[in-house]
Amino acid sequence: VKIALFLAGYGHVARRFAQLLHESEGALAALGIEPVVVAALSRRRGAAFDPDGLDLGAFERRPQTATNDPAAVARILDDMRPFPVRVLVETTTLNIESGEPAISHVRAALAAGADVITANKGPVAFAYRALADEAARAGRSFLFEGAVMDGVPIFGLVRDTLPAVTVTGFRGVVNSTTNYILTAMEQGEAYDTALARMQQAGVAEADPSLDVDGWDAAAKTAALANVLLDANTTPLALPREGIGPSTAARAVQARARGRRLKLVASGTGHGASADLRVALEELAADDPLAILDGQANALELQTWPLGRIVITQRDGGLEKTAYALVADLVTLARNRSMDR
Amino acid sequence: VKIALFLAGYGHVARRFAQLLHESEGALAALGIEPVVVAALSRRRGAAFDPDGLDLGAFERRPQTATNDPAAVARILDDMRPFPVRVLVETTTLNIESGEPAISHVRAALAAGADVITANKGPVAFAYRALADEAARAGRSFLFEGAVMDGVPIFGLVRDTLPAVTVTGFRGVVNSTTNYILTAMEQGEAYDTALARMQQAGVAEADPSLDVDGWDAAAKTAALANVLLDANTTPLALPREGIGPSTAARAVQARARGRRLKLVASGTGHGASADLRVALEELAADDPLAILDGQANALELQTWPLGRIVITQRDGGLEKTAYALVADLVTLARNRSMDR
Repeated sequence: VKIALFLAGYGHVARRFAQLLHESEGALAALGIEPVVVAALSRRRGAAFDPDGLDLGAFERRPQTATNDPAAVARILDDMRPFPVRVLVETTTLNIESGEPAISHVRAALAAGADVITANKGPVAFAYRALADEAARAGRSFLFEGAVMDGVPIFGLVRDTLPAVTVTGFRGVVNSTTNYILTAMEQGEAYDTALARMQQAGVAEADPSLDVDGWDAAAKTAALANVLLDANTTPLALPREGIGPSTAARAVQARARGRRLKLVASGTGHGASADLRVALEELAADDPLAILDGQANALELQTWPLGRIVITQRDGGLEKTAYALVADLVTLARNRSMDR
Repeated sequence: VKIALFLAGYGHVARRFAQLLHESEGALAALGIEPVVVAALSRRRGAAFDPDGLDLGAFERRPQTATNDPAAVARILDDMRPFPVRVLVETTTLNIESGEPAISHVRAALAAGADVITANKGPVAFAYRALADEAARAGRSFLFEGAVMDGVPIFGLVRDTLPAVTVTGFRGVVNSTTNYILTAMEQGEAYDTALARMQQAGVAEADPSLDVDGWDAAAKTAALANVLLDANTTPLALPREGIGPSTAARAVQARARGRRLKLVASGTGHGASADLRVALEELAADDPLAILDGQANALELQTWPLGRIVITQRDGGLEKTAYALVADLVTLARNRSMDR
């Protein structure tokens, strides 16, 4: 089936996704999926639509001008109506206080009868229950595999491979920047030096507060809690700890005791009473979360009847997040074929 | 949909599976699945069939007599023909030199138009390609999630959540008995003492050769290689190492160097040229396979484009294997509904 894609947000992840669609062309064709990017929207490059398939090279070469056309998303969704299968690929920059503009984009797409795939944490962290309901009413998919642990299929694992399993809790190391800095500080590096090195390497952002203040981990905790524990919460509602210069001494002391200091995202319980937090925890050396260095992430699920299952992503990188969008694309095509 | 089940093999796993069906009744009903055990076959209790649902309590109270009626499986499959959805639940004891009698049971079921779910390693380790082809021709499911890593959905993970991913290799700690004994020996216990203790605790069999000689790990390696790497091999064709009294010194020395000695099942490459083995390997302390104690199992998948993904089962137990059969039951119901 031909699937018309609208890339809302055109940063590193969206570009790598477009590339990965080409690299995976054969595998997708074998699954009956023929994706075509027909529209894109970028903060700096404006909006573009071409029903015959957008020339992304030309789009990238556009002069960068700060444009902000609030009507652009609705207009593009309207332009796309002739396509029977339309998909919003949401990868805009997240406002951590509101989850916008992604939430509005998702809502507009579902209302227009399009499916939604996103690597953005905002919609699932701030508005999961409402958007899932809207998707169900519209008979469309709302998928967000890339929101947590990049390409590792954590939501797909529970949804597709663990039927009749009850998830009673989770704990994970889900933010790479803080994990890098904690590892460096254990080895004696000062916080500022480690952070500066991470920024030079492109691992940490110029403004690292989203990572080091624990906001990114809190958004992922809210996302996991909303989907797995039906918590209906937001990142703003969680107890949240970050890392800073004073964390160095704790990291060194833990290591000296044969333990590791990690920023752990966790949740137990169910619904509104679920106990959720992002906190520094000292872990035993053989804890599956303790052995993670650098970009590695891991999540432990506490379940009935399978007990504790851990899934670990040992290698990081942009193409992992981009892959999550490819996996979502296949899932939505499967959902569509089941509805037929 | 009402699903008629035939339990071929009635040991611990089959009994726990029957119990788990009751415990999961609500969750299965929500998925539209209504399982009914209508037949059972046991080496010591013979065969039983009741179209209204078998009384398993009465079956268990039967006098134990060594019966071996080679025509029983065919007769029961014939008796079950009035049911539109019939499933063979294969959990007989494996002959490690042939994969029988499970392979014959699977073949008979597919030929009779039944679906097959099994926790038995034999069929997938010895005859995967042939049986998968027979299942495809019959339009039926051949599922075996419990063959490797108990309830952790390793085959489901790749099949359902990693579309368009290429698996280029794997390595895992997949046998609990050898892992228990290696851990005990690291701490100074002698091989014979550790083995005897495991036998008393019910972890190791009275005849432990399947485990300690590496046969169980070899069967799982063949199963993984056949499904993930298209190797079309058998456990007999693999280089295979086990553990014994002389392994103790190596385990202690590795630990003294801050490393861990583990029995590792591994495979890389593709098809007939895939490089497969079961071997003792000394691992770095922060290797996800090195941290496993006792019943914990883990498998690392090497993939494109996701890099290395590890899935770890921290808790063991019979109900984990039984759950794999429940997951297979849901998968076959999904396959059936997609075919409609």
